[in-house]
Amino acid sequence: MSSSLPLRGVVPPVCTPLDASGEVDTASLARLVEHLLDGGVHGLFALGSSSEVAFLTDRQRAVALETVIEAVAGRVPVLAGVIDMTTPRVLAHAETARAAGADALVATAPFYARTHPAEIARHFRTVRARAGLPLYAYDLPVSVHSKLSVPLVRELAEDGTLAGLKDSSGDEGSLRRLLVELGGRHGRAEGPAPSFSVLTGSELTVDAAVLAGADGVVPGLGNVDPAGYVRLYEAARDGDFERAAGEQERLVKLFGMVEAGPEEEMGRNSSAIGAFKHALRLLGVFAHGTTAAPQIQLSDASVALVEQRLREAGLLQTR
Amino acid sequence: MSSSLPLRGVVPPVCTPLDASGEVDTASLARLVEHLLDGGVHGLFALGSSSEVAFLTDRQRAVALETVIEAVAGRVPVLAGVIDMTTPRVLAHAETARAAGADALVATAPFYARTHPAEIARHFRTVRARAGLPLYAYDLPVSVHSKLSVPLVRELAEDGTLAGLKDSSGDEGSLRRLLVELGGRHGRAEGPAPSFSVLTGSELTVDAAVLAGADGVVPGLGNVDPAGYVRLYEAARDGDFERAAGEQERLVKLFGMVEAGPEEEMGRNSSAIGAFKHALRLLGVFAHGTTAAPQIQLSDASVALVEQRLREAGLLQTR
Amino acid sequence: MSSSLPLRGVVPPVCTPLDASGEVDTASLARLVEHLLDGGVHGLFALGSSSEVAFLTDRQRAVALETVIEAVAGRVPVLAGVIDMTTPRVLAHAETARAAGADALVATAPFYARTHPAEIARHFRTVRARAGLPLYAYDLPVSVHSKLSVPLVRELAEDGTLAGLKDSSGDEGSLRRLLVELGGRHGRAEGPAPSFSVLTGSELTVDAAVLAGADGVVPGLGNVDPAGYVRLYEAARDGDFERAAGEQERLVKLFGMVEAGPEEEMGRNSSAIGAFKHALRLLGVFAHGTTAAPQIQLSDASVALVEQRLREAGLLQTR
Amino acid sequence: MSSSLPLRGVVPPVCTPLDASGEVDTASLARLVEHLLDGGVHGLFALGSSSEVAFLTDRQRAVALETVIEAVAGRVPVLAGVIDMTTPRVLAHAETARAAGADALVATAPFYARTHPAEIARHFRTVRARAGLPLYAYDLPVSVHSKLSVPLVRELAEDGTLAGLKDSSGDEGSLRRLLVELGGRHGRAEGPAPSFSVLTGSELTVDAAVLAGADGVVPGLGNVDPAGYVRLYEAARDGDFERAAGEQERLVKLFGMVEAGPEEEMGRNSSAIGAFKHALRLLGVFAHGTTAAPQIQLSDASVALVEQRLREAGLLQTR
Repeated sequence: MSSSLPLRGVVPPVCTPLDASGEVDTASLARLVEHLLDGGVHGLFALGSSSEVAFLTDRQRAVALETVIEAVAGRVPVLAGVIDMTTPRVLAHAETARAAGADALVATAPFYARTHPAEIARHFRTVRARAGLPLYAYDLPVSVHSKLSVPLVRELAEDGTLAGLKDSSGDEGSLRRLLVELGGRHGRAEGPAPSFSVLTGSELTVDAAVLAGADGVVPGLGNVDPAGYVRLYEAARDGDFERAAGEQERLVKLFGMVEAGPEEEMGRNSSAIGAFKHALRLLGVFAHGTTAAPQIQLSDASVALVEQRLREAGLLQTR
Repeated sequence: MSSSLPLRGVVPPVCTPLDASGEVDTASLARLVEHLLDGGVHGLFALGSSSEVAFLTDRQRAVALETVIEAVAGRVPVLAGVIDMTTPRVLAHAETARAAGADALVATAPFYARTHPAEIARHFRTVRARAGLPLYAYDLPVSVHSKLSVPLVRELAEDGTLAGLKDSSGDEGSLRRLLVELGGRHGRAEGPAPSFSVLTGSELTVDAAVLAGADGVVPGLGNVDPAGYVRLYEAARDGDFERAAGEQERLVKLFGMVEAGPEEEMGRNSSAIGAFKHALRLLGVFAHGTTAAPQIQLSDASVALVEQRLREAGLLQTR
Repeated sequence: MSSSLPLRGVVPPVCTPLDASGEVDTASLARLVEHLLDGGVHGLFALGSSSEVAFLTDRQRAVALETVIEAVAGRVPVLAGVIDMTTPRVLAHAETARAAGADALVATAPFYARTHPAEIARHFRTVRARAGLPLYAYDLPVSVHSKLSVPLVRELAEDGTLAGLKDSSGDEGSLRRLLVELGGRHGRAEGPAPSFSVLTGSELTVDAAVLAGADGVVPGLGNVDPAGYVRLYEAARDGDFERAAGEQERLVKLFGMVEAGPEEEMGRNSSAIGAFKHALRLLGVFAHGTTAAPQIQLSDASVALVEQRLREAGLLQTR
Repeated sequence: MSSSLPLRGVVPPVCTPLDASGEVDTASLARLVEHLLDGGVHGLFALGSSSEVAFLTDRQRAVALETVIEAVAGRVPVLAGVIDMTTPRVLAHAETARAAGADALVATAPFYARTHPAEIARHFRTVRARAGLPLYAYDLPVSVHSKLSVPLVRELAEDGTLAGLKDSSGDEGSLRRLLVELGGRHGRAEGPAPSFSVLTGSELTVDAAVLAGADGVVPGLGNVDPAGYVRLYEAARDGDFERAAGEQERLVKLFGMVEAGPEEEMGRNSSAIGAFKHALRLLGVFAHGTTAAPQIQLSDASVALVEQRLREAGLLQTR
């Protein structure tokens, strides 16, 4: 599917369903792939943060990735996260991903070990050189505690190291500066197919990102409502920003489910992933809403809040 | 001018020109006010961060505020920053601002002392109760190291403590959530005049902010090109997002001047304020480009970069 | 009293008592000075963080400083905090402090505005040059969000800008490196009187700091038990580290009072200052335990915890 | 060797030598083990941060751990780092470590994924329950971006989850509070063998940590000068703090080698690890000074600085 690259459109990070014992529930995962493709998404990102990649063992990562690729069966490109602390460990994951048939890789800057910008550049260059697949940079300061600067991304885009960027930095000003440097809204859209995809991970401002010239979005909430994100993306792409804003606002309200778990009792991460997984369970896609250890599970009261958001968004019929 | 509140539109934070001895250059400041009003701005924010409020003594703050208010002569509302560490010190500045004839106050959360969210709420409530002027909250985590949460802002909006928010957090997802909770793009625009103004301080994403339902913008770069920001705001307000995006992109390029000073030699703050001030000097508005102590001054080479950006943006004629 | 400089020993940051209306309670403040001098302290630091300097108006700062200086009447040196955002504002406070008769000034790096290390150096040099009093640098990253590096402090010590350092960074490794560069435990103690005082603000590790070569301590808890800190300092200074450690451990337990206020309800800062002030009230030194706005006041239950700590430390008689 | 637990004394984190191709140089590693045991150390910590654990693949981790355990041959206990993002991944490393014959495990709080304190507690409890080996908590906020609180560590110590703590937080005040709560200097030393080992990772303040009641130290620099750290530890343990401080000061100067690599060119991490490895090469222990990708290598000029520090510390003969 690398003919579909560079990617444009909606590319959800695929949640990883777990059974009661904490193992990957491959049947639920295959159902999720159908749910997403039925929604019209343009690609899939397996083994991202919303996939709980940080919580999966290497064996579980392989099972999840192979399940997604098999279920997709070439209908859209599949990007594979190769999330680990440093270059040698990322390269080990890249080998698995290539063997599994991924179309591209997604890597963050190094973490745990503190690295210099020059070392971050070396990291991406080494992964690109040795991994043999197109490489997306995943800018995620909240997890890796460094931000990819505009000059660094531009340099790595121009020398062919990177095929694209997944920007989950939440820094829309910086993203705008990058997009302008890369040619801006029209320079990018009207020219030949861009050689560099810019995907935002900010699922609450997709209309704005497309207005700024972004090529697409990687929305965690897109697991729950893929069709909604496809409508949002297409409206914005077609310049109908009134319609896009309306769809975006509906999705912002739906996103409120991430606060289902009370802040005094669990992390925001656990609450958000738990909400997505229970929503998929309520929608009949997943068998369980379980999240991986050591995350705290949503209480029944929290799950009721998730259900309420689904109803308000029109995704579950009122009883 | 409080009849013009709640504010909509372009409300630049007014730079404070200094003479060679570091005192407020009132003649240049009066010229800047005319420059801004000629550009069509809808209000002015005196004594904000771009005004170097943190660098001005109380006496200098009073001189700057009085000069702005006198020069404006009621043509647009003037908001006055009352930036200080805690409630008692903010109240002292509020007294000066009210005496000078400001239309509203702008206060941050406490800083230096670490405060609890409940204490931040008390801070805004006490300032509102005692200061006798409409109050805007200034969300500026980069300076005060705490973020105003969506629930807190909403609570203070609904109980009448705050007349508005200047959001310089750069967190566009959080801003979107607030705007949706306040009624969203259409709920806010079609209803009666909003009782709560949401102004973004993110000068690189104004089209996006207005698309999301923001009422206006407080752009530091608006000192240099107020007319550009007015065109941008009006295009976005009128739903012409193609035109808005084009204007925004031009301004993003112009904004590149903030990196005139090399990062190894000076702070980003000093570089940005120095660039704005030298741009105003090159435009004939300011007599000097001096910034306050202990900031390092732009070199001739850096000033040449500022000049180049002005030319590229069409603000200076090519020689 | 500048003959006593450079300072050695116990130099408490003097708490500022407030009456019910929030004004400085000068009678209580004078009693606190006697309490501290009775305890044998070697100097006083007025208008520090524990003095709630961030919460006092300029008028209140002047009243507090003048009250302390008058009550001390030359018996020990008085350092005055000149805490504000940037050089021009610090210089204004320095003028007041010199007029009031302070022996030395204590200034932090700039805050609110982000500054470059070269600008921080300029800040201290300008304050030293214009203020006409010996200058201590106050390293307090938790409040000002930058750390004074070892090379910067050493440079400013060697060129005579700084008379000393109050290190409240909590970074004991960095402090040790500085002390070794300045000559180490013996190089400093055996040589001529040091031209540069190193005082730690870490009240829980005074024995360790003196072992490392520090000249003294600025303990907030020293308001409550000045005699305990003097015993601790003198034991460590005399090389009796067993006795010093015992005294330090007793003070660590007493310090537990700073957690009197529950974390869900108030800031750690408000809890700590409130605990010190209520302890002084229980000891008969202060009339009130009030802290300044917008801080939340200790509940009766929290005050009971403070009282319990005082009894356990032997500072209040068991009823 | 679990009879030697709880650990006391000097337990260096064992550097991992790499050959020119980036693979573990087992011959050099075996020589390092002899170098450390010759120095008199009391235990070894394999696969810690100074071992570049974040840069080693799972296969390389296994090789390094097995090499250390084999070379030690039971002479001292070997702790094995099981450093990874979350519980399931840590458990996978624990299985390898147990199979290799490690005496105890060392785990950090989860990272990359943000976790709640209750989730951090679950993490340690789950690892302890399933891994079948004594567990040390590794408090390393600089890498994992959360701090283990005193109440959390105390709770996990008292319920038997943790056998000890390696505190690399640099927060000596917090460490002191923990030690006092655990019984203090004398309560711990005079009672029966402590059931909980407190080891500091702060190699510049070992005298102070032992004075405070710590049981030992895990010094990265101990790779270079194990005998120096043993002398330092024993002097402090025996109450000869004058001698301890002198030895500590010598080691602080030697530690200056970590700044060999210029800050503009490489990360502090790379510079420190590179310095230790080149020092070991200069001492004849390692064949190479290579660090793992993507770290930048020390230049010849930087290596010359390392050599100079070794000479000044008396570890290399003057030519």
